[in-house]
Amino acid sequence: MEIDGYLRDRAAHVEAELARRLADPERGIEPKLLEAMCYSTLDAGKRIRPILLLASGEACGGSLTELLPFACAVEMVHCYSLIHDDLPSMDDDDFRRGRPSNHKVFGEAVAILAGDGLLTEAFALLAAPGGGIEPERRIAAVRELATAAGAGGMVGGQVADLLAEGTGAPLAVVESIHRRKTGALLRAAVRMGGLLAGGTEAELERLDAYGGLIGLAFQVADDLLDETGNVAATGKHAARDRARGKSTYPSALGVDGARDRLRGLLAQAIAEIEGFGPRGEALRGIAGRVASRAL
Amino acid sequence: MEIDGYLRDRAAHVEAELARRLADPERGIEPKLLEAMCYSTLDAGKRIRPILLLASGEACGGSLTELLPFACAVEMVHCYSLIHDDLPSMDDDDFRRGRPSNHKVFGEAVAILAGDGLLTEAFALLAAPGGGIEPERRIAAVRELATAAGAGGMVGGQVADLLAEGTGAPLAVVESIHRRKTGALLRAAVRMGGLLAGGTEAELERLDAYGGLIGLAFQVADDLLDETGNVAATGKHAARDRARGKSTYPSALGVDGARDRLRGLLAQAIAEIEGFGPRGEALRGIAGRVASRAL
Repeated sequence: MEIDGYLRDRAAHVEAELARRLADPERGIEPKLLEAMCYSTLDAGKRIRPILLLASGEACGGSLTELLPFACAVEMVHCYSLIHDDLPSMDDDDFRRGRPSNHKVFGEAVAILAGDGLLTEAFALLAAPGGGIEPERRIAAVRELATAAGAGGMVGGQVADLLAEGTGAPLAVVESIHRRKTGALLRAAVRMGGLLAGGTEAELERLDAYGGLIGLAFQVADDLLDETGNVAATGKHAARDRARGKSTYPSALGVDGARDRLRGLLAQAIAEIEGFGPRGEALRGIAGRVASRAL
Repeated sequence: MEIDGYLRDRAAHVEAELARRLADPERGIEPKLLEAMCYSTLDAGKRIRPILLLASGEACGGSLTELLPFACAVEMVHCYSLIHDDLPSMDDDDFRRGRPSNHKVFGEAVAILAGDGLLTEAFALLAAPGGGIEPERRIAAVRELATAAGAGGMVGGQVADLLAEGTGAPLAVVESIHRRKTGALLRAAVRMGGLLAGGTEAELERLDAYGGLIGLAFQVADDLLDETGNVAATGKHAARDRARGKSTYPSALGVDGARDRLRGLLAQAIAEIEGFGPRGEALRGIAGRVASRAL
């Protein structure tokens, strides 16, 4: 498998399905709201979370077509969180992925509501009629997504992040924040793929371990990219987190130490999914891409 | 059945279940976030949406215990929407139910996130393990709630409301806004009760008609209370909507005309559920209470 081709293909599927679901004219969504929702969703992002869901589902024998709406649901949750994180009262970011952030274009009120709409739409998608996946698995996916995205996960991590600002929080605290703020959804994406595809208990355990490690690896990689100032790759202002007095992996471990940490996490993630054999190739490839992005 | 006793009893059940679900210490929710979520949820509201769910479920033979978590999910969605609606960039309301609104107490960032947390928690609750309701009905409830609360429903209605501000929108437009902004969730609550309790097709149709009429009746009643300036009953500043250049039922139909309209809607709602016989008594009682509140 050529991983870049796989990632491009799956990202294109996600993009098309997101467009199809959002733009359904029969739903009569307020045009301004729809425009704001689409602005932050149909922006050719890397689609790493939905691809993780697809790859883990495919590793358990699931079909791309059946998994696609669920993958889009996870991406919608991700996109909502970016809109809300960028708000003036939160991280106050004027740019996202190199474009003006949602509230800069649509105003704060519509941006907040576009986020609310995407979050709600994600759950509508998990419960949408059609598709071959049985209700029991869908409900497990709803539980997985809501738990990862909610107050005990992503939303709680964002609150902790805001409260930690300027406190010079040590790395252990920063890691606990990231585990909730970004790690939980990445891990949930991986777990949901396995659950929806009907993975065995052993498969789900492997995926869970892989998902946790990948979630952490992403943060180390982002910190490294932030440190080395690659705005194009992160879409953020370089070293911004550090300027805000937050600990980062490079600031705590040094750049070389952070790179070693990243290598270690990815090697462990790849080891966890060894049991999938050839079906785990996409998951291995994704781990490799995290490394090549930041190392 | 003594309706006031029924309403008090069911509201107490909802209150207790909300407290139990939110305050579970094992979930490790950030204390500040939990406090903000509880502030706007455990505030002894009227609980009309969850009670509608319970009453319609009980009318179809469902059990209070099984329906209760789903009722709480609907109330969480309602509470999240109030927090976000009150934000400075939205309706900019400093008070809610006679107390400072969430962002006045916890700041804008935490208020937004408390809303996000409650919305997400609602879906976690629909998918929580345990309870006797089968996955197929749960998924139908997820679909119902997400559709009513999302971009085609409540969130879309709020955007339309913001855009209509100061335009002197005619009553037909105002009605279309209310149908989405407040009517959709009331109707969904009624429908969800029937769905979760396994109501027959005929029962669900009756409930749907009742729910739509009750949703509209609520708006007429609120407009009347707003007009007659009963701040204690609405928890809002009197005639505020009208001051913002929005049409209201009393402004379009006169106070007497609006009262006639309200009586007509409620009579029709009660007629729709005649087929439930004695089991529909709570639903009839709720319609009666809407009337006695505003007439």
